[in-house]
Amino acid sequence: MILDEFEIIKKYFSKTLKKFDENVIQDIGDDCALVKIPKNHVLAISTDTLTEKIHFLKDMHPSDLGYKIVAVNLSDLAAMGAKPKWITISLTLPKINALWIKHFSECLFKTLDSYNMKLIGGNTTRGPLSITASIYGIIPKNQALLRNKAKIGDLIYVTGTLGDSAAGLFLLKNKPKTMTKSLNYLVKKHLRPIPRIMHGQLLRNIASSAIDISDGLFSDLQKILNFSQCGANINLNKLPISNVLKENFSKKKWLKFATNSGEDYELCFTIPKKNISNLKNAINHLGIQYNCIGEIDHIKNGYNIFYRGKNINFSCKGYNHFLKNNE
Amino acid sequence: MILDEFEIIKKYFSKTLKKFDENVIQDIGDDCALVKIPKNHVLAISTDTLTEKIHFLKDMHPSDLGYKIVAVNLSDLAAMGAKPKWITISLTLPKINALWIKHFSECLFKTLDSYNMKLIGGNTTRGPLSITASIYGIIPKNQALLRNKAKIGDLIYVTGTLGDSAAGLFLLKNKPKTMTKSLNYLVKKHLRPIPRIMHGQLLRNIASSAIDISDGLFSDLQKILNFSQCGANINLNKLPISNVLKENFSKKKWLKFATNSGEDYELCFTIPKKNISNLKNAINHLGIQYNCIGEIDHIKNGYNIFYRGKNINFSCKGYNHFLKNNE
Repeated sequence: MILDEFEIIKKYFSKTLKKFDENVIQDIGDDCALVKIPKNHVLAISTDTLTEKIHFLKDMHPSDLGYKIVAVNLSDLAAMGAKPKWITISLTLPKINALWIKHFSECLFKTLDSYNMKLIGGNTTRGPLSITASIYGIIPKNQALLRNKAKIGDLIYVTGTLGDSAAGLFLLKNKPKTMTKSLNYLVKKHLRPIPRIMHGQLLRNIASSAIDISDGLFSDLQKILNFSQCGANINLNKLPISNVLKENFSKKKWLKFATNSGEDYELCFTIPKKNISNLKNAINHLGIQYNCIGEIDHIKNGYNIFYRGKNINFSCKGYNHFLKNNE
Repeated sequence: MILDEFEIIKKYFSKTLKKFDENVIQDIGDDCALVKIPKNHVLAISTDTLTEKIHFLKDMHPSDLGYKIVAVNLSDLAAMGAKPKWITISLTLPKINALWIKHFSECLFKTLDSYNMKLIGGNTTRGPLSITASIYGIIPKNQALLRNKAKIGDLIYVTGTLGDSAAGLFLLKNKPKTMTKSLNYLVKKHLRPIPRIMHGQLLRNIASSAIDISDGLFSDLQKILNFSQCGANINLNKLPISNVLKENFSKKKWLKFATNSGEDYELCFTIPKKNISNLKNAINHLGIQYNCIGEIDHIKNGYNIFYRGKNINFSCKGYNHFLKNNE
């Protein structure tokens, strides 16, 4: 515990205490937080850590961090179809920098407010910059979206566009001389990814499985394939790629960004074919594109990659082989 | 995420998957864990971080760390009267050291097993050694032990003995030439504190308030005084001090260890006088000493310190003044 942990908590992290939530019996201030779970609901719990130089670049703005620690954890709730409720934050800081903490906490609370969430606990510690959040959401009984329920013949969808976040990270690392509006768009997609919370909840009785894309499309979809013991046919030409990404990067680069780079925080989900019209009715009004990129198949835990109808040899852990044959 | 996070999880952290808990719908392996909370119970949540060089000495044995990350979090559940259920662990490691992880995880699971707990999630990250755990327990509705319910006239108790852990830490730092059996006892009290889980649950309808002693008796009891808006008369000569501590350290040292040093993880609690016999009936059989050290009074949020019946001038943030007058 750092010397003035209590003053920090009081000054910057007590805003949440004013917010009423009938299911929170005790928030910050006692040994534990106490919460009630509404009848016929289960609690979804996820925890994620962001560490400087590993998960974010040195000198990332504290506002972006305050946003991102919530967003990446929310993305896990989205992938289960959970409604966000509460969060705890463990903050490790190299030193007390009041301005840094002010920016971080302001953006943290702004983000929590926009999802109607409440900070219910946490701790601050001295050490190399790192943030761990545990996030809590609720789901009606038996309606969680799991990874192990994809069936052969199910269609595979992704929300939004893929690869923008990885392109944004590339730009932050490589600092181009001029930052155009469209390059800033990509950077923003990296710094401020939008977790697909509403999609997740609306997919509850429609999708057979879901996961959020944090490590990269092929890596994350692979987890559904492993848990569901099936394979996937993927139409590479159906991947949703933003015009901004295509216009600013080579095909080699954007394909890599879209398939094997992470942090898009879009949802990848499967639905039985009979649910196509239900899917439209449920999520069309959200105004976010969603695209069918393939179909679950019986190939054991692996991929069959197609490009414009042609079965191609594409390394799902890289892009070189594909490009040699298909550029 | 480190490259082989999944292999690490699979090899060392999947033991829990075999353990049945009817309230766990989904444990490690999906985006979130899913749990049910038994009817008429509330969920207690606490989170704590241990960081190398801040919370533990460099080169602390991974077995001790695997124990301690559970124990310090359990202590928060104990102080609320909660029954332990689940835990998530976020582990940040500077490098993959299989033997380190083996020792850590083996002792972690052994400790969890002994409290009938289940690991339901977590993550591993590369970075300076640090561990954050979030712990979950359940409490029957309206029976949680809070910090704000102490009343004037209530008696103040502590479990076990105070100061042993601080003495143990002192020994680890100052490395005496010969480590006697009794010095090893003190070191063990520091490395392997026993959270008072059974006491906490048995105090549910007896204690008016409770807290665990992690920062030091006066510092932690002060929180009860602040939240309950009252003061305390403390009989310094009633503090439970082990013979081992008294025999191996000066009075100046052991008084400091017992009052202003932390990590004993004993419970400090208050009870209305009418509950004295209930208290005996409830916890005598546990075979752990518990001592009345004072009484809640109306002094606003402060301490009145007595030594053998005499009101003395004792700095609750230090020991010097007391010793000048009373040694």
